[in-house]
Amino acid sequence: MRLLALILGLALVVAPAARAEDGYDLWLRYKPVEASVRAAYAARAAAIAPTRDTPTMKVARAELERGLTGLVGKPASAAAGSRDGVILLKADSADTALGDEGYRIRTLTVNGRTTTVIAANRDVGVLYGVFRYLSLIQTRQSVDKLDIASAPKVKLRMLNHWDNLNRTVERGYAGQSIFDWWRLPGHVDPRLVDYARANASIGINGAVLNNVNAKADSLTAPYIAKAAAVADTLRPYGIKVYLSARWSAPIEIGGLKSADPLDPAVAAFWKAKADELYKAIPDFGGFLVKANSEGQPGPQDYGRTHVDGANMLADAVGPHGGVVIWRAFVYSHQQPDDRAKQGYSEFKPFDGQFRDNVVIQVKNGAIDFQPREPFHPLFGAMPKSNLGMEFQITKEYLGFSTHLVYLGPLYEETLKSDTMAEGKGSTVAKVVDGQLDGRKLTVMAGVANIGSDRNWSGSQFDQANWYVFGRLAWDPEASSRAIAEDWTRMTFGNDPRLVKPVVAMMMGSREAAVDYMTPLGLHHQMGRDGHYGPGPWVSGGPRADWTSVYYAKAGPDGVGFDRTPTGSNATAQYAPAVGACFADLKCVDEKNLLWFHHLPWDYRLKSGDTLWDGMVRRYSAGVAYVDGMNRTWATLAPYVDARRHAEVADYLKIQRDEAQWWRDASIAWFQTFSKRPLPPGEKPPAKSLEYYESLVFPFAPGQGG
Amino acid sequence: MRLLALILGLALVVAPAARAEDGYDLWLRYKPVEASVRAAYAARAAAIAPTRDTPTMKVARAELERGLTGLVGKPASAAAGSRDGVILLKADSADTALGDEGYRIRTLTVNGRTTTVIAANRDVGVLYGVFRYLSLIQTRQSVDKLDIASAPKVKLRMLNHWDNLNRTVERGYAGQSIFDWWRLPGHVDPRLVDYARANASIGINGAVLNNVNAKADSLTAPYIAKAAAVADTLRPYGIKVYLSARWSAPIEIGGLKSADPLDPAVAAFWKAKADELYKAIPDFGGFLVKANSEGQPGPQDYGRTHVDGANMLADAVGPHGGVVIWRAFVYSHQQPDDRAKQGYSEFKPFDGQFRDNVVIQVKNGAIDFQPREPFHPLFGAMPKSNLGMEFQITKEYLGFSTHLVYLGPLYEETLKSDTMAEGKGSTVAKVVDGQLDGRKLTVMAGVANIGSDRNWSGSQFDQANWYVFGRLAWDPEASSRAIAEDWTRMTFGNDPRLVKPVVAMMMGSREAAVDYMTPLGLHHQMGRDGHYGPGPWVSGGPRADWTSVYYAKAGPDGVGFDRTPTGSNATAQYAPAVGACFADLKCVDEKNLLWFHHLPWDYRLKSGDTLWDGMVRRYSAGVAYVDGMNRTWATLAPYVDARRHAEVADYLKIQRDEAQWWRDASIAWFQTFSKRPLPPGEKPPAKSLEYYESLVFPFAPGQGG
Repeated sequence: MRLLALILGLALVVAPAARAEDGYDLWLRYKPVEASVRAAYAARAAAIAPTRDTPTMKVARAELERGLTGLVGKPASAAAGSRDGVILLKADSADTALGDEGYRIRTLTVNGRTTTVIAANRDVGVLYGVFRYLSLIQTRQSVDKLDIASAPKVKLRMLNHWDNLNRTVERGYAGQSIFDWWRLPGHVDPRLVDYARANASIGINGAVLNNVNAKADSLTAPYIAKAAAVADTLRPYGIKVYLSARWSAPIEIGGLKSADPLDPAVAAFWKAKADELYKAIPDFGGFLVKANSEGQPGPQDYGRTHVDGANMLADAVGPHGGVVIWRAFVYSHQQPDDRAKQGYSEFKPFDGQFRDNVVIQVKNGAIDFQPREPFHPLFGAMPKSNLGMEFQITKEYLGFSTHLVYLGPLYEETLKSDTMAEGKGSTVAKVVDGQLDGRKLTVMAGVANIGSDRNWSGSQFDQANWYVFGRLAWDPEASSRAIAEDWTRMTFGNDPRLVKPVVAMMMGSREAAVDYMTPLGLHHQMGRDGHYGPGPWVSGGPRADWTSVYYAKAGPDGVGFDRTPTGSNATAQYAPAVGACFADLKCVDEKNLLWFHHLPWDYRLKSGDTLWDGMVRRYSAGVAYVDGMNRTWATLAPYVDARRHAEVADYLKIQRDEAQWWRDASIAWFQTFSKRPLPPGEKPPAKSLEYYESLVFPFAPGQGG
Repeated sequence: MRLLALILGLALVVAPAARAEDGYDLWLRYKPVEASVRAAYAARAAAIAPTRDTPTMKVARAELERGLTGLVGKPASAAAGSRDGVILLKADSADTALGDEGYRIRTLTVNGRTTTVIAANRDVGVLYGVFRYLSLIQTRQSVDKLDIASAPKVKLRMLNHWDNLNRTVERGYAGQSIFDWWRLPGHVDPRLVDYARANASIGINGAVLNNVNAKADSLTAPYIAKAAAVADTLRPYGIKVYLSARWSAPIEIGGLKSADPLDPAVAAFWKAKADELYKAIPDFGGFLVKANSEGQPGPQDYGRTHVDGANMLADAVGPHGGVVIWRAFVYSHQQPDDRAKQGYSEFKPFDGQFRDNVVIQVKNGAIDFQPREPFHPLFGAMPKSNLGMEFQITKEYLGFSTHLVYLGPLYEETLKSDTMAEGKGSTVAKVVDGQLDGRKLTVMAGVANIGSDRNWSGSQFDQANWYVFGRLAWDPEASSRAIAEDWTRMTFGNDPRLVKPVVAMMMGSREAAVDYMTPLGLHHQMGRDGHYGPGPWVSGGPRADWTSVYYAKAGPDGVGFDRTPTGSNATAQYAPAVGACFADLKCVDEKNLLWFHHLPWDYRLKSGDTLWDGMVRRYSAGVAYVDGMNRTWATLAPYVDARRHAEVADYLKIQRDEAQWWRDASIAWFQTFSKRPLPPGEKPPAKSLEYYESLVFPFAPGQGG
């Protein structure tokens, strides 16, 4: 009885009022493994050997201890070989295959004792290896006989935060910026350490802290001190800090009259600014630049080129080892040509002229992060330049944070697209990771979906998009399905009754969003400004290329944007075989049909449906898929903690209503042109077109400036 | 050995990776009491008797169970009288002294068993009693022989959230609004339940959800549905929802051409709107209105009066039991008179003309929530009207969330001020709680300091300002020191080595802020727009009454605002004895000296110092106090969990630097007029006046619109 009282007393003391899981822990939950497998794991992970004391080795060791403590029990400290089950962290390998950041995890015998060695050439590789090792236990893989080697295929694996200095986040749907500029540098939110841990766990090694629509203020002394405090916090986790540079900073904070890149005073300003930055942040990554795009200033304001601009900046940061990442997302409404063609037209001629430390960062598609876009024609078209990928993780066009849309298949579809630039197999992935043209300075960037919301990403499932981005940046040829499964296991649990349906939901969710928003190659049909909900009727305003009608070109004769040689001829920007296929109705995939073709309403789809009937059925299929997710999720309540289950269920209901809204509003609009009845079995829109057109959302999130 | 393994296994299972305390739990931490006292408490709190199942009784019981589980161990369920130590919750007393919301907690013998009875006339009183009971254990008071009765002295104890529909918070320094309008009503953040618990624990029974600078959108059907979802969540905790009403809503969303309160169409709009609101929220509290103030529309736009406006709205909500809270914070820069006089001048003549369900809400002072203001002359001046108090909890003028300034003494100072309206003892507290004039509809409102920051208020210590506001709204005659002690014990712990110095720090902190910002009755000397940091040089701009020089009136002849009969004669707005004292240099308290008097730099203070020397010494005393808080806090590390200790330490360093900045900049400015040396031992400002004047802070928080 006394002992029992002791047990109960102990339980009382060690069990604080259990806090509901709220998603803060992301995929690093480290919950205890099932009792049935605990002993087996614990036998291999009973102790950690002492380590060298670099800051990175310290956090690697701390993470391993934290993870093991949660998963299988607190490990002891013991020298390798002194007993079985010791884990040895080793940062002084000389294994060239691993490079600067790779790791190798092996089960070895040391002094006759079974030992797990997590080895790397540099300490950051050990940190990555630790996260990988823990993920093996988290996903219930065996750790008995390990021999795993992994090294990242892309050099700079970066998040781009479109975070403003007032803590609003452009196109952010997860609260405020996690960078609390106001309290920095006097106070660094401990949350930044968890941000660093999460990034390191998926291999992200760079973060651009401020919006590409940048303020010059971020380059003033007070803000450099703030950025330095962030850099100090992220550094042990192998993450470098970058800043978006406002092109006109020499004028705004430098007292100059010009920002002409060929003006020696301007170059001197940037050189001095770089020196100042590197003094505060010795491993500062470099600048990200949005120039001459959507109203941002740039070298063209002075009759100069992107090359003039990028190279001048590159010369400022180059001596410090920094890079300049120059965005190819440029277009002008004063340019009458198809907006989809403008990035290629502006940049392709400059191939080979950029400095070695310049990277051209290209969005996955030629318009703007639409639910589906064919790959950007610049991929494969600039073999003599460093060409980086820019994906969007935040779901500006994919339902914000309340729609469950797993972006892995979108990323994978782009990466696996064959540019044919150097023959079959010249995939976008091989361009991005440098294989195709033997380039070393490679970049994969994701526009972050991270904010101050407790669950980081605004929803539980949007965490998966952060996760899959990191995993694909590490290996652009990885499988988005396998990654979804890892994420599900680490985030929710390993019960197959949970894992299988959740992965299935995720894998179909992006196609469903394409269907209920913009099926068959339609694009840019969302509401004005806030980009919330359907807005196929959006027209007028300051520029045609910000309207929906510019892209859908719906009329009595049909719908779609003719980008074949009879139209804008954007297909000519691709390798001949690729472009010819896109332009050929017999060859083009119907998923891209209306992206490349303007077709009559009675055009026959492969299904035998007319285009109009097929469009309507696609919209409905998207809604039906969300219905299905609602039903599936309801059955998963036994396997998911109550709070997260309820949150996801709420969001799925919101998504269901909004999918229906997208379908109904889109059908109501396009029917005014098709003048055809809905196909049999299809319900008419719930409300009138006038009603849908009347809806306005001045307070939609993500519009802070 | 097996049993030991079981114990350890148990510990492993029940002990998740302990999360650092981050302040989320506020003063409701319910950490286990010391082993030495646990048995004694547990004996009195061993079980809870079954209760009637109203939503409020359910949450009362759940809170009691949660609290006891954390503090002393999980209680059983048992009928009163069946064993010792049962707690009985009883909502059907008929004790008129308790009113609708009071409670009585007694230790009684039922069937020979010691029983604690928490009784009230209505279930919400039981909920309040439960929180009070738990606080007794939290603060380590005996619960052996209880006989406590308490009832609130003020009827409406409200938070005013200046929260915008885009989730920015005007003058908010704690992140975004906790009201996530975007995801409402589809998703209600569970955090709102904790918000409701915290409010109920201190007796707050109303919340105005949106900014007084209101948008008409909040009165449209979608936003009413969102507010209804919030109301449903808060209702079990006894909290009613109110909305700020945009005066021009009839035009903006009603399709009318006018918002004239005497236009029958306008009255009909509001009547219909009230009907719509009460259909969605049957216990809707009513409207808060900022009219004809700082650019907001109002009845004066149509040549009508505040009475016309307030009474028209009151007639719309009156039949539903709603109230109209009409703010007296009005002033116009087109009015040449002293801004401090304008609220009184506009409202006093209307005394007795407002409907019974109208409350005039008056800020504590006549300017605007300055670090120190004499009480507002309207208190005591409108005996035939319902007069409510508006305090600011968010520290717009008191260092935002990074300065440790406990506002209890500010509130107490105002409440204890004697208006002399009906002779000695006619304190502001007695006006506010209705005692003085026998008024029943009484209001105490606090402009909330709550946001999405994990710690709710932006800092650990700002939680105390939310807490003390609630406690004083319950009892305006309570002691701010006693409340600080309760808060400290509940928030940090009961160790006297902690409690004593923390309470001491808190109690002097507001006087210190007055000293380093605006000593001796100076006021409104902060930076422009963002109200961040010192700005005594602020002049020009759109209106004189938004500048610092308007208030300090510094010149070669001296400094201060003459509000005596030789000046603006604002002193005449007070009861004769009060006004005469304020106007009399021999009588006026030096803390209000320059509020009421313009005095030469060589004026002799009671200390014997000249005014200039005394001012300088005051600034320095404020800085020295913050130095002292830094030193004291450093010694408290053994008694405070690491994360909260570090956060407070960071903030105290920020406060130290900013206090010095206030002192230095203010001295540098005023010295240009005094042209006198600093008194002996005083260091000159660290930088030039030009430097201080050059600082701008475009991204200061709290400016979202």
